[in-house]
Amino acid sequence: MKRIAIDMDDVIADATQKFCDMYKAEFGTTIEKHDLIGKEFVEVIAPEHQARVHEYARQKGFFSDLLVIPHSQEVMLKLSQKYEIYIASAATEYPNSLKEKHDWLKEHFPFISWLNIVFCGDKSILKADYLIDDRLKNLKVFDGKAIVFTAPHNLKEAYEPYTRANSWLEIEKLLL
Amino acid sequence: MKRIAIDMDDVIADATQKFCDMYKAEFGTTIEKHDLIGKEFVEVIAPEHQARVHEYARQKGFFSDLLVIPHSQEVMLKLSQKYEIYIASAATEYPNSLKEKHDWLKEHFPFISWLNIVFCGDKSILKADYLIDDRLKNLKVFDGKAIVFTAPHNLKEAYEPYTRANSWLEIEKLLL
Repeated sequence: MKRIAIDMDDVIADATQKFCDMYKAEFGTTIEKHDLIGKEFVEVIAPEHQARVHEYARQKGFFSDLLVIPHSQEVMLKLSQKYEIYIASAATEYPNSLKEKHDWLKEHFPFISWLNIVFCGDKSILKADYLIDDRLKNLKVFDGKAIVFTAPHNLKEAYEPYTRANSWLEIEKLLL
Repeated sequence: MKRIAIDMDDVIADATQKFCDMYKAEFGTTIEKHDLIGKEFVEVIAPEHQARVHEYARQKGFFSDLLVIPHSQEVMLKLSQKYEIYIASAATEYPNSLKEKHDWLKEHFPFISWLNIVFCGDKSILKADYLIDDRLKNLKVFDGKAIVFTAPHNLKEAYEPYTRANSWLEIEKLLL
């Protein structure tokens, strides 16, 4: 059975939307996903807000109520019939996120066992056939077939060597 | 640079001693490490205490104050000059342990970056050249060179196919 490692933020959990929501709640300014094409969130906001926004992901609860990326649940359930599925999130950067991410997975992806959850830093440690991820730094150190999952920030030239999936329905077509 | 993945409990953190200490505090009975040769902790205690002891590792704080296994700090610091060192703990079984283990590493192994910490379940996900671990279930699914680190429970025949290290000073001799 081939093995697929799957990132969390902006692949199955909508972290970008949470940044938009928290920013609007704090500063009253609406940032939408199309404003973020090819850019990081902190690049589109006022410089004096950047330090504050860098703290958002370290706040208690940030990862607890992220929206599920559309179709990720149903497609992952189908994939799990044919592949070994591992969740692989670079979560050790945010120690407070570890329990929240674990509980979020239990709630939204109850078919993923604790045996198949990996919270790591550098993703070169992963032994898998595929990695589905939105970040270049993760894709480029991975030893297997890397699939870039479209997020606004990764619509950049540097990602073009990788196979791109714009949605979970495209993942389904690619892998099933 | 070759890569070594290193388990935490009973390899760098003395979880067995914590079980002994908690058991004595609760039930007044002294269990010592030589009582545990070839056995799991729950095998040497009264059957009516087993369910309670199974809960110890799920209690808040269990992993916060584990003693450091002798010489692990100095030898790992030396190893880190010649190898990539990753900590790889099967921590996702105990979600409350995740932050405690992270903080314990920061306190006792400050030279290990968050990039090199892996909290996982099944250790077949690790891509490394060596794994130092005390558990057969981890050693046998690992694809590289597996080194069994002596703990009382693993003094059993099933471990004999693996290279054994009885201490961190033996790890130093083996790998440096």
